[in-house]
Amino acid sequence: MLSEKINADWIAAAREGNVRAVARLITRVESDAAAAQAIIRELYPRTGQAHIVGITGSPGAGKSSLVNELAKAFRRRGRRVGIVAVDPSSPFTGGALLGDRVRMRDLAGDSGIFVRSMASRGNLGGLARTTASVVKVLDAAGYEVILVETVGAGQAEVDIAAAAHTVVVLEAPGMGDDVQSIKAGILEIADILVVNKSDQPGAHRAVRILEMMLRPSMPPPVDPTHRDRGHRAPERASEASAPDDDGWSVPVLQTTATTGAGVEELAAAIDRHRDWLKANGGWALRERTRSRREIEHVLRDRYIDELKARVPVGEFAALITAVVERRLDPYTAADRLFSIADADPGSA
Amino acid sequence: MLSEKINADWIAAAREGNVRAVARLITRVESDAAAAQAIIRELYPRTGQAHIVGITGSPGAGKSSLVNELAKAFRRRGRRVGIVAVDPSSPFTGGALLGDRVRMRDLAGDSGIFVRSMASRGNLGGLARTTASVVKVLDAAGYEVILVETVGAGQAEVDIAAAAHTVVVLEAPGMGDDVQSIKAGILEIADILVVNKSDQPGAHRAVRILEMMLRPSMPPPVDPTHRDRGHRAPERASEASAPDDDGWSVPVLQTTATTGAGVEELAAAIDRHRDWLKANGGWALRERTRSRREIEHVLRDRYIDELKARVPVGEFAALITAVVERRLDPYTAADRLFSIADADPGSA
Repeated sequence: MLSEKINADWIAAAREGNVRAVARLITRVESDAAAAQAIIRELYPRTGQAHIVGITGSPGAGKSSLVNELAKAFRRRGRRVGIVAVDPSSPFTGGALLGDRVRMRDLAGDSGIFVRSMASRGNLGGLARTTASVVKVLDAAGYEVILVETVGAGQAEVDIAAAAHTVVVLEAPGMGDDVQSIKAGILEIADILVVNKSDQPGAHRAVRILEMMLRPSMPPPVDPTHRDRGHRAPERASEASAPDDDGWSVPVLQTTATTGAGVEELAAAIDRHRDWLKANGGWALRERTRSRREIEHVLRDRYIDELKARVPVGEFAALITAVVERRLDPYTAADRLFSIADADPGSA
Repeated sequence: MLSEKINADWIAAAREGNVRAVARLITRVESDAAAAQAIIRELYPRTGQAHIVGITGSPGAGKSSLVNELAKAFRRRGRRVGIVAVDPSSPFTGGALLGDRVRMRDLAGDSGIFVRSMASRGNLGGLARTTASVVKVLDAAGYEVILVETVGAGQAEVDIAAAAHTVVVLEAPGMGDDVQSIKAGILEIADILVVNKSDQPGAHRAVRILEMMLRPSMPPPVDPTHRDRGHRAPERASEASAPDDDGWSVPVLQTTATTGAGVEELAAAIDRHRDWLKANGGWALRERTRSRREIEHVLRDRYIDELKARVPVGEFAALITAVVERRLDPYTAADRLFSIADADPGSA
């Protein structure tokens, strides 16, 4: 376990705007699970202040540019901004590193913005949890808005979204050409929908399609630019789909990241959602859901570790072989392991 | 628990080509976790015969059409074919049901092909496991090739791929316009790459880009249609990335599902991969990896259930509240739950 003194020094330095201290803490959290646990244990009491905003959408929707512009908009509102880009890029292309460099140039010189790209190598489940820890470091370091950018609509994105207070889903014009391209799991968790590249042909059509998907029983609006916000929010995928989530009307906004058009309105909508969550109990509910999930994750991992310590390696391997050879089914094998671990709590 | 007699009757009927019996077993497995466990326990000894083929790729790559053609190709080779389409479609569009109906029409009248679409509602993690159970039912029912079709590149897809013997990744021309659209996590797990819609402009370019991604250190081939298969397979994302996976050269094939061009070659490549796995130990290794994962999943679930039975509800809720209010961190809360459960094994 790390010295608490060192961690405390780093956190103190990070709070004073020392970007290198933040980067060092994050590197520890990413690279070493034991260090991550020690760091999170220590800084946890300082967390809970940041507004965590998940931003997701298909590749090509212009996510990175929009996130950069959004970060600048929150800076203009006087807030410190953290950006965590969860980018399961190819080990072949090294996309995450390149993206980092482009961003660093764009946002350079502003110590009020911290950018971190996280690449994965086929370990999206672990990535979701490491991302949650990185977000906690930024939260404890005093970043007031944390923009978590993810690609696609897999389980990792749903997990990451479940850890956000506000989820922004981004689409680009042209998506209407193939209805399948609107990822359903993602639409379900959207608090705010954005059609980016709104200067391109098809933007109005994209807005109209999204409005129709939100309100499937309503006829399409006559004016395709019409934005009716009187509809009901769709059910959330997470446990946060409780009564207090009702009543938020998912807005469909338009932005053009390259010109900055619509970005202020998006920042305002994000703030409005935060205020709404705080006024209606949604903030506390999402914190509660996330806390329960985190505790259960820790318990699951710990149990498998405990079990492996209690069951002789050879016995575990023999049970796997029996399952492979169809002499045992996985449930019966688990029964046996469970009773070995229960009966013999002392052995290692 | 279900009557073993009834399950055995259904399985016997399914083996004799009774599609309704297969459908009934699958419905039970999907809708009721306890029934699923009872059914899997019983039919597990009959599994392990099927060649499980995962087929994944972006929306719009023409996956469903290709899977249908591939099913027919395997039928021509005399094999019974199961299709499991994992389609996290929108609850708004009902995509899975529509897809089912189109497919049923296309493949109707052949009792040697069984099609099942599985929709999810934001529960991709659970979906991966239900899919694994459905595959087991089809395996036990004597389907010799099981095509598991998934969208995208999330954790669920990686989990599903980890349960397949052979993973086919599909791309369409045009993907080269945006390198990001090639989902990295998926490329890493590909045993066979396919550019579908090979009659469209950009097909050669797509093949060339995929070849370059597979062999980043090599110069691009002079002839864009040139297919060099002498390169080395990329590392797999799963534990199956063991030495015996080396030596398989990931082929890049071209198909046109609408005309059937290239589909026979794809079926042949899939068979070749199966033969290669069996000859080089890869088959046994993948079975072993899957078996260990399945056992660990069962254990994790059982532990959380046990723990919840041992810890009074109010105490669990109080610990969550303490975490929400930052009086405790999640690790310390887990410590407390762990010791409550350990100290008081009798209470409920």
